[in-house]
Amino acid sequence: MAVHQLTPRPEQYSYVFGGREPLLSIAPGDLVEVSTEDCFGGRVTSPDDRPSEVVPFAELNPVSGPIEVRGAEPGDMLAVHFVSIVPARAQAISCTFPLFGALTGTHETAMLNAPLEERVWFYDIDLESWTATFSARNSDYRLDLPLDPMHGTVGVAPASGEVRLVVTPSTHGGNMDTPEARAGTTLYLPVNVAGAMLSLGDGHARQGEGEVCGTGLESAMNSVIAIDLVKGGAPAWPRLESDEFLMTTGSVRPLEDAFRISQKELVDWTSELTGMDTLDAYQLVSQLGLAPAANVCDPNYTMVAKLPKWALKTAQAYGGVHARLRTSAAEYLAAR
Amino acid sequence: MAVHQLTPRPEQYSYVFGGREPLLSIAPGDLVEVSTEDCFGGRVTSPDDRPSEVVPFAELNPVSGPIEVRGAEPGDMLAVHFVSIVPARAQAISCTFPLFGALTGTHETAMLNAPLEERVWFYDIDLESWTATFSARNSDYRLDLPLDPMHGTVGVAPASGEVRLVVTPSTHGGNMDTPEARAGTTLYLPVNVAGAMLSLGDGHARQGEGEVCGTGLESAMNSVIAIDLVKGGAPAWPRLESDEFLMTTGSVRPLEDAFRISQKELVDWTSELTGMDTLDAYQLVSQLGLAPAANVCDPNYTMVAKLPKWALKTAQAYGGVHARLRTSAAEYLAAR
Amino acid sequence: MAVHQLTPRPEQYSYVFGGREPLLSIAPGDLVEVSTEDCFGGRVTSPDDRPSEVVPFAELNPVSGPIEVRGAEPGDMLAVHFVSIVPARAQAISCTFPLFGALTGTHETAMLNAPLEERVWFYDIDLESWTATFSARNSDYRLDLPLDPMHGTVGVAPASGEVRLVVTPSTHGGNMDTPEARAGTTLYLPVNVAGAMLSLGDGHARQGEGEVCGTGLESAMNSVIAIDLVKGGAPAWPRLESDEFLMTTGSVRPLEDAFRISQKELVDWTSELTGMDTLDAYQLVSQLGLAPAANVCDPNYTMVAKLPKWALKTAQAYGGVHARLRTSAAEYLAAR
Amino acid sequence: MAVHQLTPRPEQYSYVFGGREPLLSIAPGDLVEVSTEDCFGGRVTSPDDRPSEVVPFAELNPVSGPIEVRGAEPGDMLAVHFVSIVPARAQAISCTFPLFGALTGTHETAMLNAPLEERVWFYDIDLESWTATFSARNSDYRLDLPLDPMHGTVGVAPASGEVRLVVTPSTHGGNMDTPEARAGTTLYLPVNVAGAMLSLGDGHARQGEGEVCGTGLESAMNSVIAIDLVKGGAPAWPRLESDEFLMTTGSVRPLEDAFRISQKELVDWTSELTGMDTLDAYQLVSQLGLAPAANVCDPNYTMVAKLPKWALKTAQAYGGVHARLRTSAAEYLAAR
Repeated sequence: MAVHQLTPRPEQYSYVFGGREPLLSIAPGDLVEVSTEDCFGGRVTSPDDRPSEVVPFAELNPVSGPIEVRGAEPGDMLAVHFVSIVPARAQAISCTFPLFGALTGTHETAMLNAPLEERVWFYDIDLESWTATFSARNSDYRLDLPLDPMHGTVGVAPASGEVRLVVTPSTHGGNMDTPEARAGTTLYLPVNVAGAMLSLGDGHARQGEGEVCGTGLESAMNSVIAIDLVKGGAPAWPRLESDEFLMTTGSVRPLEDAFRISQKELVDWTSELTGMDTLDAYQLVSQLGLAPAANVCDPNYTMVAKLPKWALKTAQAYGGVHARLRTSAAEYLAAR
Repeated sequence: MAVHQLTPRPEQYSYVFGGREPLLSIAPGDLVEVSTEDCFGGRVTSPDDRPSEVVPFAELNPVSGPIEVRGAEPGDMLAVHFVSIVPARAQAISCTFPLFGALTGTHETAMLNAPLEERVWFYDIDLESWTATFSARNSDYRLDLPLDPMHGTVGVAPASGEVRLVVTPSTHGGNMDTPEARAGTTLYLPVNVAGAMLSLGDGHARQGEGEVCGTGLESAMNSVIAIDLVKGGAPAWPRLESDEFLMTTGSVRPLEDAFRISQKELVDWTSELTGMDTLDAYQLVSQLGLAPAANVCDPNYTMVAKLPKWALKTAQAYGGVHARLRTSAAEYLAAR
Repeated sequence: MAVHQLTPRPEQYSYVFGGREPLLSIAPGDLVEVSTEDCFGGRVTSPDDRPSEVVPFAELNPVSGPIEVRGAEPGDMLAVHFVSIVPARAQAISCTFPLFGALTGTHETAMLNAPLEERVWFYDIDLESWTATFSARNSDYRLDLPLDPMHGTVGVAPASGEVRLVVTPSTHGGNMDTPEARAGTTLYLPVNVAGAMLSLGDGHARQGEGEVCGTGLESAMNSVIAIDLVKGGAPAWPRLESDEFLMTTGSVRPLEDAFRISQKELVDWTSELTGMDTLDAYQLVSQLGLAPAANVCDPNYTMVAKLPKWALKTAQAYGGVHARLRTSAAEYLAAR
Repeated sequence: MAVHQLTPRPEQYSYVFGGREPLLSIAPGDLVEVSTEDCFGGRVTSPDDRPSEVVPFAELNPVSGPIEVRGAEPGDMLAVHFVSIVPARAQAISCTFPLFGALTGTHETAMLNAPLEERVWFYDIDLESWTATFSARNSDYRLDLPLDPMHGTVGVAPASGEVRLVVTPSTHGGNMDTPEARAGTTLYLPVNVAGAMLSLGDGHARQGEGEVCGTGLESAMNSVIAIDLVKGGAPAWPRLESDEFLMTTGSVRPLEDAFRISQKELVDWTSELTGMDTLDAYQLVSQLGLAPAANVCDPNYTMVAKLPKWALKTAQAYGGVHARLRTSAAEYLAAR
């Protein structure tokens, strides 16, 4: 297995999925050490900066990529395993952003109310203690939160020649903003164009479910990913697998439709892996499944459906690719 | 502390919240041993019964109560602690129900498609091993699931003289169908009428988040609840507290509005308990909170927002009533 | 045909549908001259009053009734024809109301933003010119608007023993707030309890589609209604008929579900009246139908679906009851 | 004023907005005679064809264009006046399409129900009588409907380098599917890229509000458009103007958010044109506005908000560009 490096120069960051030339070309089975910028492009350098002023809208959420995966063709499935995700700076940043977030009027949920105050929080990151320190802005409340690093935005080039802004999650992945995209997990994405054209960014040192205020602990990241390819059988929507769970996603509005998609995906996957018919799988998922919100703030909302893998008995998703990538990750980490 | 029994006769079950005479009158601090019927009123006795035929619509989901809590007045808050919830029969029942469930057209999400098949599953309940056994209807897939008993429907008389069908969750509680309403947890409900008039039912031997197909493992229950009263300060929406989490709920449609309510409630509660202003609390909840679906099938959808209690440091909700009820429950269980 | 009078005393107004003793008992075919209060119960008497301060929440939107219709039984259908609706005072009142309206955070669409300003507009009503005069509060813009009086709230006792606040429209009618409920139109309501128990109120001297700010030109009314009964065949949701259109309604959230219900109702009605199968009726409604919003501010949103009656050729809804009520109304008006 | 012709060859049709080289370059003030294909690309030639089989998904809804408007720069506004829209073939086609339409499960509103039957209707078009004849498939019901030709899909290149499939309406216009886009009306679109890059297609010989079943009377068209440019002041969302109405649009999900956007746009526009403050304009729009659905079937739903122009007194939108384009259209038609 080859290990590549991808460290984009500032002008190389991308703000879209689709329509871009690759920065790197790899083979299935390879690993990539990739650095990603924070969602502000590193331009918010003080709690007194206003993100809406220092970052042009079209330059929010830079992603690193695309990475071309040789041999990937439409209809295939990309398996992206997060080997490690480590905050790259001493501070992570969160904020309220005008017309963004779940508890304020937005461009989509248009209101006449005055907008919320724009406020910025800097969190001190301590990799030793693996914590981020929250400090209230208007009181002296401080609290250490455990790190749980993840990538909010991971996706491939969309189908049918579309080019989509990075902020909108959809069938191609993108800005799903689920805390499940953490180290140890494999993300499955449909391949829509030759080479797949994978990009990622928007690291969060941690994030609550729903990303209620619209931002996590936004952080540049030093990440390692291991990539594999499963020929044929691209899923309709992105899926994830951890050691414990199969997970499906849906990213649309309203939120119940995101829920419906994620659940139908999980029912279909369960049916396929257990041999049960659709209604029997519907029943089992209904009784055993978890259903956390991922984001309720982005242009499409994302829900996740989770089934514990013990419910599948000996069945393995996609021929055990997650387990193989776990092994590959372990070998890499041991050798480092 | 007094211990009461409530074992309704068949004709005593209620199908509404509000407008009913109490079956029992208790004082704050008392416990009640209460038996509840399953959502089918016990009328589904074979996997070949069709629930839509054997149960009249208006007799779905019987509740036991109301229980009058003496001294409770509008504006007060009822604390209902679940001491124990134990399945009362050897089998629990689940089904798909015509025009009900998240992945089918319903009375509200009207479709022209043919309805889904009505199918019934019987689960064997084993209290020794604390499991329920799932058996697929159209294959030989069998699986033991851990029990996690809960009450889907718990509520009080609504405000303003309303009488609501048991199936619709709202500010008065009702059919929220959250798996969080399990033994060891305290449910907080606003008091809208003198005596509060608490009723409960709809036990599930377990249930996935979202109650996707529309039913859990429907089960008659033998339950014990401990009840207390907090004068003043009724919450706008039902809340819960476990040893680990503060939880808030919202029950409306669409699902993002249920999410918004639950999150705003959690932000406000966090602000009140920590002294932080609203935006600082918004920030903390956004980074630490969990956001599971409760039900996405009932006439109102329910979302839950959860904050780990360690984030509050020494602050205690409602003067520590949850801890006191835990103690009371422990004494009861020790004496049994 | 008998003509009755209903002029409730202040303490006789009702704020709920269901659970009330009738103020009047009539026979099918009778007319009622009924006076209704404005949605503020007449308590807003100056543009400087704040409705949220002078009207208790539970006393918003008083209705006149219930009127018992003798012989009405569950499963029947009530036909309520609006003979005339005339503003009763020299001024109609509109306002923005805190946490109410389509373009502000509300109790259901919970936001952290500061609420909108509460502002009141008084419109001068001129019955001679049949106009209402709008005067901007913060500029000297004035405009005469044509009157188009209607009742926002008309409904019967709900099914299954429910008692519902007047503000929530549902299958029993209620606060649908559609401008289609004007003189010359017949409203069809399902009968859920013996006597039907009809109430009405919430007159608007006119209202835009959607009732965007949450209020119309709120006005006490002197109205005349003619009532008939169609045995059997109660519709699932309220319907309307004018000389030109068949109309169906749906009142739920989200708005697309209100749309779906109204359209499915219209498809089914068209199929029944023309003998076409469901898909052929779906096709015709899709190409000829109108789909205006009624309200997008109440606890349930209401959409209306309209089909021009010429598309039905000679078919008549409900045996021509609308035409008979039109005749009855004409006789009454001629005799007055 | 110059008159151009645009008659794309089959391989020249576009299926996206954005990222394409222009087929034609014109100056502001010019007219274009443009031919458009039907949404099936002309491939459905018999009522027994199944559209889902004879048309590849990525080749649905071809558009003619893009047309470059010289001098158009980001921030400007394009005014597209529909001079005439005339069905080009003797038959228009409608259908139910699997997983598409308001009253069926779809890719977004995922259901487990069996899909609806795929059925095709051919309408005979008679330009003399200006009618289309509906014939039921499963009965002998026939009905002549008045023609009311319109373009369902009209838009420009999106902002920020996005390339969007033609089927998704958004801020750049696209597949709004509103019957208001008829001859005599001017559509206002924001310019996002140099040259604006206008494309149009998806003609309907007529369509009901909401496009409930997912298709109108799909028809190739011979259309004439007159185009002008208003420097600066691009609207956030597409707007329309007829001789009688100002109209605004919003295209998102859920439907109430599309409603909110359209209404907020109309409030802001009214405020700007009358000099009233926002709340006074909110009041006037609430009492005078109309709110019809455009489509409730496309990937984004579209609502329209309408205000009668007499409410504006002497104020004219965009310096009277609509009136000037009407004059230009009249001259063209007189000369033809």
